[in-house]
Amino acid sequence: MLDSVRSVTVRDCPIGGPELVVMAGPCAVETREGILAAAEKVAAAGARFLRGGAFKVRTKPSTFQGLGLRGWQLLREAADAHGLLTVSEVVAEDQIADARRYVDLAQVGSRNMQNVPLLRALGRARLPVLLKRGFGCTIDEWLHAAEYVLSEGNPDVILCERGIRTFETATRFTLDVAAVAIAHRRSGLPVVVDPSHAAGRRDWVLPLTLAGVACGGDGLLIETHPDPAAALSDGPQAVVLAEFESLVDAARGVARALGRSIPAGALAGPQRSAH
Amino acid sequence: MLDSVRSVTVRDCPIGGPELVVMAGPCAVETREGILAAAEKVAAAGARFLRGGAFKVRTKPSTFQGLGLRGWQLLREAADAHGLLTVSEVVAEDQIADARRYVDLAQVGSRNMQNVPLLRALGRARLPVLLKRGFGCTIDEWLHAAEYVLSEGNPDVILCERGIRTFETATRFTLDVAAVAIAHRRSGLPVVVDPSHAAGRRDWVLPLTLAGVACGGDGLLIETHPDPAAALSDGPQAVVLAEFESLVDAARGVARALGRSIPAGALAGPQRSAH
Amino acid sequence: MLDSVRSVTVRDCPIGGPELVVMAGPCAVETREGILAAAEKVAAAGARFLRGGAFKVRTKPSTFQGLGLRGWQLLREAADAHGLLTVSEVVAEDQIADARRYVDLAQVGSRNMQNVPLLRALGRARLPVLLKRGFGCTIDEWLHAAEYVLSEGNPDVILCERGIRTFETATRFTLDVAAVAIAHRRSGLPVVVDPSHAAGRRDWVLPLTLAGVACGGDGLLIETHPDPAAALSDGPQAVVLAEFESLVDAARGVARALGRSIPAGALAGPQRSAH
Amino acid sequence: MLDSVRSVTVRDCPIGGPELVVMAGPCAVETREGILAAAEKVAAAGARFLRGGAFKVRTKPSTFQGLGLRGWQLLREAADAHGLLTVSEVVAEDQIADARRYVDLAQVGSRNMQNVPLLRALGRARLPVLLKRGFGCTIDEWLHAAEYVLSEGNPDVILCERGIRTFETATRFTLDVAAVAIAHRRSGLPVVVDPSHAAGRRDWVLPLTLAGVACGGDGLLIETHPDPAAALSDGPQAVVLAEFESLVDAARGVARALGRSIPAGALAGPQRSAH
Repeated sequence: MLDSVRSVTVRDCPIGGPELVVMAGPCAVETREGILAAAEKVAAAGARFLRGGAFKVRTKPSTFQGLGLRGWQLLREAADAHGLLTVSEVVAEDQIADARRYVDLAQVGSRNMQNVPLLRALGRARLPVLLKRGFGCTIDEWLHAAEYVLSEGNPDVILCERGIRTFETATRFTLDVAAVAIAHRRSGLPVVVDPSHAAGRRDWVLPLTLAGVACGGDGLLIETHPDPAAALSDGPQAVVLAEFESLVDAARGVARALGRSIPAGALAGPQRSAH
Repeated sequence: MLDSVRSVTVRDCPIGGPELVVMAGPCAVETREGILAAAEKVAAAGARFLRGGAFKVRTKPSTFQGLGLRGWQLLREAADAHGLLTVSEVVAEDQIADARRYVDLAQVGSRNMQNVPLLRALGRARLPVLLKRGFGCTIDEWLHAAEYVLSEGNPDVILCERGIRTFETATRFTLDVAAVAIAHRRSGLPVVVDPSHAAGRRDWVLPLTLAGVACGGDGLLIETHPDPAAALSDGPQAVVLAEFESLVDAARGVARALGRSIPAGALAGPQRSAH
Repeated sequence: MLDSVRSVTVRDCPIGGPELVVMAGPCAVETREGILAAAEKVAAAGARFLRGGAFKVRTKPSTFQGLGLRGWQLLREAADAHGLLTVSEVVAEDQIADARRYVDLAQVGSRNMQNVPLLRALGRARLPVLLKRGFGCTIDEWLHAAEYVLSEGNPDVILCERGIRTFETATRFTLDVAAVAIAHRRSGLPVVVDPSHAAGRRDWVLPLTLAGVACGGDGLLIETHPDPAAALSDGPQAVVLAEFESLVDAARGVARALGRSIPAGALAGPQRSAH
Repeated sequence: MLDSVRSVTVRDCPIGGPELVVMAGPCAVETREGILAAAEKVAAAGARFLRGGAFKVRTKPSTFQGLGLRGWQLLREAADAHGLLTVSEVVAEDQIADARRYVDLAQVGSRNMQNVPLLRALGRARLPVLLKRGFGCTIDEWLHAAEYVLSEGNPDVILCERGIRTFETATRFTLDVAAVAIAHRRSGLPVVVDPSHAAGRRDWVLPLTLAGVACGGDGLLIETHPDPAAALSDGPQAVVLAEFESLVDAARGVARALGRSIPAGALAGPQRSAH
């Protein structure tokens, strides 16, 4: 009943098929221990991707800007240790060579959605791209941004709806669930939903996760943290790892009701896929 | 996992409990045949309420403004014939006496959410109220509007999220799914979701319906029409009656995944509840 | 160079001609002394209308809701004492008979812009109407609302731009200066600008006032209070009366640069026009 | 009465002082003849800067993307021929070396306002920066973006308000005139107003220009084109050159009313300032 999309395969993982893909982890890679702990937990809950920023685009220069290349190395190590793939934001063209070594899915952040030189460079790089919607951008502008990547010869674009800016301040952004269906229809590309940035507060991540699955999302991108109160960025919206598994379970139930699935978690310890 | 709410009972029908309540029918009552056909179909699909406007608040004076009292009489007749309750918009205080005879649940429309004299009058009237969110209003303003009804002694307020106005024009409004959870938490009142006005176009009603159930909605308010192309108002967003049953079936699946339910449809013909 | 509009005359005061009309006073009439002091000051600065709410539409029921009819009597008395006309909000049809005695220009508030029964009643009443733009409404919806008054036979509609709701929270609303020019072009009706509600904070009233004149506004509606810190409503956005005269002087300079004018203030004491 | 700001000097031209600076020219440099004609006209009307894009950030890849370096060379030639300075958008770090030769004021476009690597690079480059507000960004985010430039040691940042995205579609964006005053107060930086992108249509450029001056703008950035119907980008919002002089005259009148000025135009022909 929902529109069909062509699936994009990242390494061995198809996105856009019947199986929903969970991507989870902290906003930013902070420490080796932290990212290893996150990898173990999210893998156990059924995630296929470990997320974690190394080059952060923050609103103010005085806030934590990420660990840089060291962050990507730790992300890769933690992902490999638990059979996960990696997704992380690339903010400049000169990071692409490193990204190829450490990042399986290169995220273009909301603030960079219309950074045309970056989009073109990723189009030439043939690295799969997760294109977040600009929070002030229309669905059509988002799809036009995707064209900048596609038109350079890179067919592996996955869209990510993460909320738009509206007058409502009870949430950080307003998740535009219709955009998932509309982007599917107009582009045929897979669409992942990020409930965390839309919610801006842990309490609303669950309903937005379930809504994201219900409206046809092909995956979920969720911020988790072992101790959100101590997080260096976006702590308030991170789901406590201890509750992440039940969050994924609830999403799994909705997926099943729609004839889709979310795979069960890995048993503790390594090693589902090799890098 | 979702917040619990106190349920509001309209006649014999509790709203806010484990069973989701479907309210459906045309934007406006247009003809006796039309509303009878709609009642039969929506009852068959599992709806408990027949909706249909008689006193319309339209953007322009030159458009169809409804049948007035005759519309309510037809709505009541059709609902009674198929064991349904009625929900319809009340736009002025002097309609309340008639509403008591014909309308089980008095809707306050989005454009009237801050019509304080009307809210107060409905508060004194002790008629259950379905309070739609103003499309330009915050969640807190919506809950304050509910207080105007509650503070006059009427405890039977059901909220209805129907989309807010944003810069995105691909849909008529942007359904704010987080608002359902937030309104639950802050008010403890039941919240019904109207996917039709948010979508503005039939194609997006299904994903918004499912998202509305997934985020915790206690009911659905859906526009249906036997022949939307011929509708006198809001045709583009009305679901064809022939497809309504499968829409409700899909919603039922999601509700079940969340431990809730939508009752099966009535067998054709009268008469589940008496008026 | 700016579009010409037809002017609407309220008593002896044309609005929409070369002379800009200043309307000022407190958000709500609170005391006899207060409104008399306000009338004296605003008349001295060149205002032609005294504003002051008696029937307030407030977001919450627990806040000050106005003095009701007594407020209108005090407003009238104060206006008459200083040769001013009165402008005040009418929130329900049953207030129109009283409004005719006390109010020269009946304001429809932003929250009531689409209250169709009220618009129609004012259309039949032939009382000049100041129609504020709904803060969530488009220019076209605003002009359609005006049609509800006009189509009942009342040609005396003056529009009022007072800011729309956007994601920006530094001001209470975002003054849409282009809307003044667009409403002029599309409707030919005079447009008054309310910088106070847009600003939401005294500091930004001056630049918005000047912008409102520059973009072609035919008048200004400004909240003033002798002691804003003690105001029962909207204190933060009220201009201190002591500074009101210099605010009008600055507006006068901009008006003059555009070939228009704002009349000089009355000498202290009564009585320019009789009621 | 308005807040004072520190002025930023570009070559010999102070911005932020009593004299308002007009920047004008086509959206994109298209031909040598076109940009020379534009330079002559805008200089004659009193502009100090010639604008013209060479590296365009367009919504879609299939539209005109600018002449690149050749565009900057033509812009420089035309500006020099008429004693003008140049302002043009820089979209990537690797363009900065060339920008130093051809561009006096490096514009960061609305879509790049949060492109942190670019902001930092311009901070290190010590080229004066015109930072446009992101159309989906708050005033505070805009000022934080300015901090990225300032904190690298470049004090020469000029802000540019160009409209924000709202639900209103009658204009392309909604010019936020209060933002000029608020940015002045909070940052002390000069603020230039771009009425063209906000208007999106030639007809509304005049009222927005005047409002931009009235609310305290330190300059104007205006799109002009000898033949807008033939423009390769943004034609509908470009002011016909033949009308540009009267537009600046009107702005000059408002500036004078506020105790400021816009210099008279150069006599035809070269050469006020040398490069």
